[in-house]
Order: sequence, then structure tokens, then C-alpha cells
Amino acid sequence: MTATQGSMPTPSGTRDVLPDEMRELRAITRAMVDRLDSAGYGEVRTPTLEYERSLPGGSAALGPAYRLIDEHGETLVLRSDMTLPIARIAATRYSNDSGPLRFCYLSRAWRRVKPRSGEAREVLQLGAELIGGGADGGASELLNLLGEVLDASGLKGWKLAVGDSRIVGELLDASGVAGDDRGVLVDAVRRGDFVEVKRRAASAGSVGGRSLNDLLSLRSSVDLLAAEVASSTPALAQLHALATALPAELRERIIIDLSLSPDLNYYEGLVFEVYDPAIGRPLGGGGRYDPLLREFGKATEAIGFALDADLVHAALAGEERGERSAT
Amino acid sequence: MTATQGSMPTPSGTRDVLPDEMRELRAITRAMVDRLDSAGYGEVRTPTLEYERSLPGGSAALGPAYRLIDEHGETLVLRSDMTLPIARIAATRYSNDSGPLRFCYLSRAWRRVKPRSGEAREVLQLGAELIGGGADGGASELLNLLGEVLDASGLKGWKLAVGDSRIVGELLDASGVAGDDRGVLVDAVRRGDFVEVKRRAASAGSVGGRSLNDLLSLRSSVDLLAAEVASSTPALAQLHALATALPAELRERIIIDLSLSPDLNYYEGLVFEVYDPAIGRPLGGGGRYDPLLREFGKATEAIGFALDADLVHAALAGEERGERSAT
Repeated sequence: MTATQGSMPTPSGTRDVLPDEMRELRAITRAMVDRLDSAGYGEVRTPTLEYERSLPGGSAALGPAYRLIDEHGETLVLRSDMTLPIARIAATRYSNDSGPLRFCYLSRAWRRVKPRSGEAREVLQLGAELIGGGADGGASELLNLLGEVLDASGLKGWKLAVGDSRIVGELLDASGVAGDDRGVLVDAVRRGDFVEVKRRAASAGSVGGRSLNDLLSLRSSVDLLAAEVASSTPALAQLHALATALPAELRERIIIDLSLSPDLNYYEGLVFEVYDPAIGRPLGGGGRYDPLLREFGKATEAIGFALDADLVHAALAGEERGERSAT
Repeated sequence: MTATQGSMPTPSGTRDVLPDEMRELRAITRAMVDRLDSAGYGEVRTPTLEYERSLPGGSAALGPAYRLIDEHGETLVLRSDMTLPIARIAATRYSNDSGPLRFCYLSRAWRRVKPRSGEAREVLQLGAELIGGGADGGASELLNLLGEVLDASGLKGWKLAVGDSRIVGELLDASGVAGDDRGVLVDAVRRGDFVEVKRRAASAGSVGGRSLNDLLSLRSSVDLLAAEVASSTPALAQLHALATALPAELRERIIIDLSLSPDLNYYEGLVFEVYDPAIGRPLGGGGRYDPLLREFGKATEAIGFALDADLVHAALAGEERGERSAT
């Protein structure tokens, strides 16, 4: 995505979008926003810059962000996603509203990038947040909505990988892994380093008659996940029950993937990522983030997703050209 | 616009936009973007952050901007408008295209604000740029387009004040004003301080039999501007000819206002501002900026306008409530 245009490059990880591409992108994002709006998710806009002091104590949760000092000497940060501002809105503008609250957005967010990594520094995010979703934390509603929004974009081949941030810990507890091995295994699972997982898990106990290695490496469609495996841990059982109850057309696109883990530490519980065979990286993802709402003083369920609109567009263009990613 | 929400305020000059307002704003901006698109103005998106070193030598022209240092030690600036990035695109991505080039945008821009001034620090701008507009620099086409876009928003009462950055200087030349008086008079005209204008202009010569004070204070509809006044200076004659040739429904909304002067020093020639009786400040404006294109190495005509989408929405809401501003 890095652009070099004569002597006037745009910053690495950013680019200009010219009219032909913009017209397609506009059609896609309008269709997705309209779908969100008609599902009762009201669009919000928040300031691009926020006071750093207004962020909850766990603002380090956001990871490195762009900071600047304004004309009053205040430290401002460029938002790194919309989940945090919407949690702020829910906790302040809707503090007496027991919910459920439904919001959506089409907004840019900024990430620090590694030089020459090809990562986007500026991302156009389209997403939704459901706060106070009740019984299952709003998971069924939000996953169904995500499916409808992806369909509205025109994408055909999308898949949804789902996991739960608690499962790996529960498996390590049940198999008696402790000490240094525990941190190394968690890290290896998150990095998808299954050679390391196999090496470290070999000496561990089994869980329900299955080896820890098999369980940690689990990637399965919902319908092919054996009932005795699905009941290995409470969080996996809950995830399997959630997925099983989804409509067939959505369930068939789901892969249960225990290596899935959130990259932001305010997620807890369900996490998911969206893939498309036409493109080699996740188009977006989301999950439960009740802990963030608690930091803002609102004790309720919260779940959301965000899609990278440019990647959705790129995947759609790839599908139309009949491409399949190697990854 | 400054919002204080419990213990988590948004930065001064910024605000959250909640769903009911956002739905109205979305309808307005979509209608305006669609009008621009169907007139052949292709929407572009540019990075929010630009390298300061990529801006032309006259980047001080932009006035104070938000600066930050990225992870590679480069100085980045938050864009203060879209005219500069679009001039960059025209000069780089379309360097061999003799034009005319037509672009539009719906993008945020950032301005430094005075504490407690009520000014918006973050502005959602909707605008258009015409580069290589030919004979009249594209002025007729762009002013007609601006009228169509304002009509598309649903606004009824809008007015257009037009001036030319060269007229005041030409009048001062013709009346023999020199030295300190000259700078003081230019400044007084720009500030609209007509007491000071009268005091300083009293001793000056007349132009074409009219007192300098009367000419510098000129505000007139197009049709009521006397022919002998309109021919006082070459730039005023050119402005009058341009306005006279516009369709009646647009011409009737125009006020020729010599106090109008650009707040950005890359404007040269025609300048204009959009007003609505329902709101006490300009909704936007624009003008000719050939000098900026020259700085980017492209010697051609350039003209553009930008509207503050939030102010257009506020004016529309005011019109619907039957309000008229005191100013």
C-alpha cells in the first residue's frame, strides 16, 4: 500500500484513492452501512483526536498510538479503533440506558506500522457494536449481522474463524501445564507455531482422552467437531453451542480455531476473524470486550466487529478476477 | 461545538455525532456527493497524515497545523484542507493529463482553534476542485456546480458573496494610496472595519469619480452594480462580467463584496463565501488558487470550493425551524 509518487510520496502505509476505485468503494460501504442502519445499528461519528487523559486506565491496551500536543498543552491521540470511543459514548451519553445499545460506524483509524511491512497505517473501518446484548452477550445477533453485512458487500467466499480467549488457558489447566511451559505454549498457539506446540505439549497430560497437542491445534468446521472434543473445556463447549445454534448458511462458513486470540487485551471471551480466499490476510474481526465497558464504569456485555473496507473491496475485486490466495 | 460529557470530554472544538443527527447528515452528504459525481467530479480520498517535507515550499501558507513525529522520525501533519492533497495528486498522478481534471471529496480536515472560541477543530468538508478549467479559469462551471450542490442539500436561502483578491490593491493603486496607509487599509477592509476604512480613505484620491471609501465598502447585487462602478478596476470588471453571465437563478443569489478576501494565501483572483440566513457564519467558500498548482510544478488554472457539512446541516435544520441569523 506504500505509494511513491514522484518527489511527493504519501507516508508509508498510506495511499491516495482515485475516482474509479473510490466509486466502487463508495458503493460497497453504502450498501454495508445501509444494512447496518436497517438492522437498527445507528451510525455515530466521533472525534479523530481524543484527550489521552480521557482514555481509561488501560489505554495502554490500545498499543502504541500517534500522540501530539495541542495548542493548550494537552496530549491528544489519534484513535486506533472505534470501539473505545463508542464505549465512551455508551458510558457517558447513554449512562442511564439499560440497552441494548446498537451503534455502527464508517471511520478511519490509525495504527503504528513496521517499516516496509506493507501494513496500512491508516485504515477505513466499517463496524458495529452491540452493548447490553443479554443472554449470550449478543454473540448470535452480532455474528448474524456480520454475515449480512458481508453479503451486502457482494463478497461470496468469506469465512469466519471463531475462538474464545479463555479456551487455551482452560486446556492448560486441565492438562496440568504450569510454569514456563505455559507462557511458551500460549505464545506458540497465538503465533500458530504448531511445531513448537507439539514439542512443548508432548509431555503434558491429556484432556478427556485427547492429547493436548491435538486440542491446541484444533481447526474444525462446526458440524465435524466431535461432541466429546467440544466438551473438553467450558469455554469450548459454550463456543460450540453458540455456533451450532446459528443458521446453517452462517454455520457452514465457520471454522472453530483455538489459535485465534485477540490482539487487543480488552477482548475477553468470544473472538473471531473474517477471511476470504481471494486475499491473504484477515478482512477484519472482533469479539467480546466486557472488560473495556467495566473500565468505563458500565457493567454489561459488549461485542463488536470491524472490517477493513479497503480489504473488503480488494477481496471483492479478487473474487471477480477468480483469485484464490495461497494462504 | 465543544462537548463536556461527564469526566470524559472530547477535545475542545470536537464533538460526537449521535445516530439521529448522523442519519440526517448522511442523507445530505450522499445527495451532495451524488450531485458532484454525476457532474463528472470523481471522488478522491487522500491520507489524513502527510509528510511535512512533501508539502510545497509555501506550506506555511496552510497556517498552523497539527504536527507529529512518526516511528521513523518523520514529521507528519494532519491535513488542514483537501485542496493541497488534490493539487499534489493533480501534479503527480495526472502530470501528463492536460485536463480539465475534476475531483470531489468528503473528508475531515483539522484547524488550530482559539480556546473557548466555539470554532470547530475538526471539520467535515465536502468540496470540489476543477483544474485546467480554461478560459475563465473554470469559474462559471464551478460556481454553477456549487449552486447545484447547495440545492441538492435541500438548503433554500443560501447566498453567495463573491470578490477578487486583486481588486483592493487595484483600487489603492488607482487612488494613489501608498506607504503605511496601504497596509492598514487592506487590513481594515479584510476585517470589515469600515469606520477605519472611512478614516483612512478620506484623504485618498477618487477612482472614476467615486470616493475610495465608497468603493472599498462596496456590497451590491450583480444587477444593481452601476456599470461605471463595475469598470473601476480590471479585476472588478472581470468579476462583474463573470457574474452577469451566470444563469439568473444563480446570479440573483450573488452579492459582490470587495471586503471578501482569502484566509489562505494560495488564493489569487476570484474568492467567494457561502452564507445562509439561518446561520451566523459562512458555510464554506473557495476561489482560484493557480499559485498553488505552480508550486507543485503544474502551470494551469485551478479553482475549488469547500463546504462545512455540519454547518450545511445546521443551516438546513435552522431553515426548517424558520430561523434567521442576526448577522
